[in-house]
Amino acid sequence: VATEFERIALIQAILGPPPNDVSLGIGDDAAVLAPCQPEQQLVWTVDSFVEGVHFRPDLMTWRDVGWRSLMTAASDLAAMAATPIGALAALVLPTSLRDNDLLDIARGQRNAAQTISTAVVGGNLSRGSEVSISTTLLGRTTAPVRRDSARAGHALVACGDIGLAAAGLRLLLRDPKHPPDDADALCAIEAFRHPVARIADGLRFGPVGSALIDVSDGLAQDAAHICEASRVRIEIDLGSLIDDRIARLARRVGVDASDLVLNGGDDYALLGTVAADQVPEGFRVIGRCVEGHGVWLAGTNRRIDLHGHDHFRSV
Amino acid sequence: VATEFERIALIQAILGPPPNDVSLGIGDDAAVLAPCQPEQQLVWTVDSFVEGVHFRPDLMTWRDVGWRSLMTAASDLAAMAATPIGALAALVLPTSLRDNDLLDIARGQRNAAQTISTAVVGGNLSRGSEVSISTTLLGRTTAPVRRDSARAGHALVACGDIGLAAAGLRLLLRDPKHPPDDADALCAIEAFRHPVARIADGLRFGPVGSALIDVSDGLAQDAAHICEASRVRIEIDLGSLIDDRIARLARRVGVDASDLVLNGGDDYALLGTVAADQVPEGFRVIGRCVEGHGVWLAGTNRRIDLHGHDHFRSV
Repeated sequence: VATEFERIALIQAILGPPPNDVSLGIGDDAAVLAPCQPEQQLVWTVDSFVEGVHFRPDLMTWRDVGWRSLMTAASDLAAMAATPIGALAALVLPTSLRDNDLLDIARGQRNAAQTISTAVVGGNLSRGSEVSISTTLLGRTTAPVRRDSARAGHALVACGDIGLAAAGLRLLLRDPKHPPDDADALCAIEAFRHPVARIADGLRFGPVGSALIDVSDGLAQDAAHICEASRVRIEIDLGSLIDDRIARLARRVGVDASDLVLNGGDDYALLGTVAADQVPEGFRVIGRCVEGHGVWLAGTNRRIDLHGHDHFRSV
Repeated sequence: VATEFERIALIQAILGPPPNDVSLGIGDDAAVLAPCQPEQQLVWTVDSFVEGVHFRPDLMTWRDVGWRSLMTAASDLAAMAATPIGALAALVLPTSLRDNDLLDIARGQRNAAQTISTAVVGGNLSRGSEVSISTTLLGRTTAPVRRDSARAGHALVACGDIGLAAAGLRLLLRDPKHPPDDADALCAIEAFRHPVARIADGLRFGPVGSALIDVSDGLAQDAAHICEASRVRIEIDLGSLIDDRIARLARRVGVDASDLVLNGGDDYALLGTVAADQVPEGFRVIGRCVEGHGVWLAGTNRRIDLHGHDHFRSV
């Protein structure tokens, strides 16, 4: 394999020059950003993407790994109604990882970053026993939307598919080498491999919304984060979430459609609360906030059990 | 072990509330920072600290691990002449790591952050097969000092011990359970376990210096980074680097004192270039920049072989 410094040069050639508001990119002790506007606030997040936990190399290419590591981290900026300034990536790599695989990771990161009009402007390479990518992103916003400001009376809204990526993962797991290629399956597998951080949707939601989160742990779990932070009760209208495609996919992978949409995760949809007469374009109503606490199924007396992803408990 | 969300709450209690210029800390999708001043530039870095590569749990406590992971990342801000705004920490943890060990990591991070007047304001917890901590820091500066602006004719200067931490590591490796406790050994082991990012020294150097880097890979290797980026030749005066204590420690651990100071790393001293009549307080002259290229021993015709740390080559 190439040396650490040769690898940095190869990655730098793939990532290209830094964008305009980054005055110093790869190659020094740290990146330097142009001063921001006084009316803007900085939003800052970090997320890890670990082999054997967040991905399996037999289920996606190294390019997919690079894409997904960047997009799932960037999704946290969308959930704050922020637009990205840049990203840094800390890569921990086993010595067995080939140079070409590393460069494919960098290509996936670059493609993902370009898709949301940003760039990887620095990072770090370390050795380790498994591939692990920690991506930190900075964004700017004039109106950050928090989790703790949902209001009783507001509608619960979503933007993006929910449950589709979880169906895609299950299809892949059944036969990683020969995944099905009909329209439903391709859609679901693509949702799993190539989520897109909903930056533009978050920005449209920012000025009107009361609370916003991205669906990473699973809809029920992430709704519970809003409930707990905002001290409201959330009622989810299951019917609004299960369309024909999700119903077909759920039957194919042998799980309840309700389980798929409530506990699926991995889609990186946006979940927000907003006055019912101010729902922005691209968002659909999937429930409501009322006084109380907990996550419930609308029209029933059923409180939803939480089966979202927990890193330190088996579920 | 506690759940992921219980662990976050426990860590949050240790880390305390965010500082004044951080308007939203732990608990949302991302941290939010107060707008910065227009005359300031943001400096942004990320660094990983990996079990079995950067540390061994038998050589330091978990509190030391937390301290060192934060300080070694913060050292990159010092090397840009920046003052920290805050840190995010992405922790990858095996399920075997006990809650108390995790909280000790957080205590070490908090103590290190307080020492340089900043705080950990967010992060991420993931599962993985080894402990790995990726720390990202933001800083602000009015005068970032790069690697690529050293000038022939300037003095090469250093701030902080060089080679001491490498001697400490070698002492620890000889008998991890019963390290020696005489004054020389205590000093060296402390330098290894508790480096301090030289923030105030970097700020003092910023307005006068031409180039600056922190010594993490080893003095010769980091000097070479300046040489290559700035296209100058650096001559190191070995005599200025080997004091009585380093000479005694080198004999004890059975290595050449010159090897200890040139290839040691781990001290997180600052290495800079500056006009000879403008060397700031706390910095000492250890060589000079001249026309040419490469790192050489002053007063000799010897070019220094580079044995600095490379993550993907054995040396």
